[in-house]
Amino acid sequence: MTQKQTPISEVGEFGLIERLKKKCNELRLSANVTSQIILGIDDDTAVTRPSPGMLQLTTSDLLIEGVHFDLTYTSMKHLGWKLMVVNLSDIAAMGGVPVHAIITVALPAKITVEMVDDLYDGILQAAQTYGCAIIGGDTNTSIGNTMVSATITGEVPDRFLKRRNGAKPGDLICVSGNLGLSHAGLKVLLREKKRFLESRQPDGFDSQLGEYTHAVTKHLAPKARFDVAMTAAQKEWVHAMIDISDGLTSDLRHICQQSNAGAIIYEEKIPFDPLVVQVAGEFNESALEYALFGGEEYELLFTVDPEHKNELSKHLPDISVVGEITEEKDTITLVQEDGSIKKLMSGGYDHFRQ
Amino acid sequence: MTQKQTPISEVGEFGLIERLKKKCNELRLSANVTSQIILGIDDDTAVTRPSPGMLQLTTSDLLIEGVHFDLTYTSMKHLGWKLMVVNLSDIAAMGGVPVHAIITVALPAKITVEMVDDLYDGILQAAQTYGCAIIGGDTNTSIGNTMVSATITGEVPDRFLKRRNGAKPGDLICVSGNLGLSHAGLKVLLREKKRFLESRQPDGFDSQLGEYTHAVTKHLAPKARFDVAMTAAQKEWVHAMIDISDGLTSDLRHICQQSNAGAIIYEEKIPFDPLVVQVAGEFNESALEYALFGGEEYELLFTVDPEHKNELSKHLPDISVVGEITEEKDTITLVQEDGSIKKLMSGGYDHFRQ
Repeated sequence: MTQKQTPISEVGEFGLIERLKKKCNELRLSANVTSQIILGIDDDTAVTRPSPGMLQLTTSDLLIEGVHFDLTYTSMKHLGWKLMVVNLSDIAAMGGVPVHAIITVALPAKITVEMVDDLYDGILQAAQTYGCAIIGGDTNTSIGNTMVSATITGEVPDRFLKRRNGAKPGDLICVSGNLGLSHAGLKVLLREKKRFLESRQPDGFDSQLGEYTHAVTKHLAPKARFDVAMTAAQKEWVHAMIDISDGLTSDLRHICQQSNAGAIIYEEKIPFDPLVVQVAGEFNESALEYALFGGEEYELLFTVDPEHKNELSKHLPDISVVGEITEEKDTITLVQEDGSIKKLMSGGYDHFRQ
Repeated sequence: MTQKQTPISEVGEFGLIERLKKKCNELRLSANVTSQIILGIDDDTAVTRPSPGMLQLTTSDLLIEGVHFDLTYTSMKHLGWKLMVVNLSDIAAMGGVPVHAIITVALPAKITVEMVDDLYDGILQAAQTYGCAIIGGDTNTSIGNTMVSATITGEVPDRFLKRRNGAKPGDLICVSGNLGLSHAGLKVLLREKKRFLESRQPDGFDSQLGEYTHAVTKHLAPKARFDVAMTAAQKEWVHAMIDISDGLTSDLRHICQQSNAGAIIYEEKIPFDPLVVQVAGEFNESALEYALFGGEEYELLFTVDPEHKNELSKHLPDISVVGEITEEKDTITLVQEDGSIKKLMSGGYDHFRQ
């Protein structure tokens, strides 16, 4: 290798993705493919058209032990459930419904048959909850960590497809549920893990997670918000949609970039669970930052034509309007409770930067 | 975990797959899915019907450093090519053509941007060669090994679908190309790696692979046999088809099991490249065993109505008839060159057994 070698950390995850996207899209334009590609690597899922009038959605996520999950506090059943939800949430964010899933696993020797059973119980419970069939997969040994991967296809009628690029200046920015709770759950789990490892009697270790159940559950077993997505998909006044996997600011930035727009958000309008304020307090950290930058929420972020504001509360309960889309390209502005203004950097999770 | 825990090695890869297949198929029967599932976890690929008259094929494979490939002798470009081919070969074995691919990678810090470029060059070269578009994926850091995974969809008109379960007693057993060459290539690469590691001057190491190029290329950069598969798919006298990924005996057993039949194969009819005999000789091993049990050939194995034997050579060059399907269920018999008879155990590669 005499060629210059660049560490991936230098370009970062998003830089790497841009580079690969360019390569793949160039080929896509020249490839002799028989099924029409509507969207390649550009949104929550790929979009293709196997048959007239209906679009097929495809998404894939790989979860790696030590990177995405920690088996000291993640049960195999929760892991299976979450593997499905992180992919299903992408299907929801496009306005679609899931159809099929392919599951691939790489298992080190420490994983027993019963643990695989538990993993699949979680996978199948999610499949059943959200109406999706497991049609195939691949099982492998791993000499390193446990790894689980799912590819899920879904479908959506043309008119219901919600992309990231449809936001218009003046649109209301909406989020489902509340924000920061998954990150609060993660903080508590990591603290508990540290307590456990430092405990002198690991066998008699008394876990103190009771009062944090709500946050821990949100982190370990999030829900895919099809309840919101399926209604939002049917409303032509919902202009753009994405799921919050990287964090509010980072995912809002995706919408802004693809819609050639900016955004303003108001601290006072951000929906908090009281537990987020409590946990952030215990760590001497800011609940606002949990909400702005915390990932793995799997809530939906979408923009709505302001003329339909009244219909929003009628059709979509459990939604907060947190700001508006602006014309100021790629700029996300936070209006703090005291009225002062702050520009927000992305701050979402980047796998390849430290 | 008070429940009994069973090491996966105790049930083996095929035992584990059977267990998971049962779970998934049970749910499949009860799930509310909108697209018809023709085949779940039962063949080279899953088969679904997104639109009338056309079937969709989906397959997924994960390749793990240290399990499936070794970066000391595998270039990133070859790795990318092979990742595609192992999946494309499954699409070919169903009689289909590829349409879309989703690529997922997990990369440790030692992998540079240029290495990822090389990986994708190999992926894209295969995509271009076989007419497939890359429509999405997922990139991750890995704290352990490099891992690359592809999910490929394809399509096939109903009447061209070739399953494993169609073989009938009396059918001729056919293989494309020749057998054992990939395994011979692997043996040579492992010997060369050992020489390299033991060399006192690794910088000036003089690789001696020249005379083995043919075998090494077959191992590192196999071809998907669409040239054979697309013709075979159109012939109704081709009854069953599979690709040889686990080894002739193991993959023939899949056809026999699913067709409720057995097989007899003749040593004298097995197609060898002279290099296989040479390499096996150098290792004091049996070329026949390389051919019977060597995996990763990605040649096609299919059965043909004996009444159409003459059409076989007319339509399908580069094919050898190596035996016949029999009525003796699940029994594979080898007739050796001296006329003696031997029952063949499976002997294919099982990821979870040692």
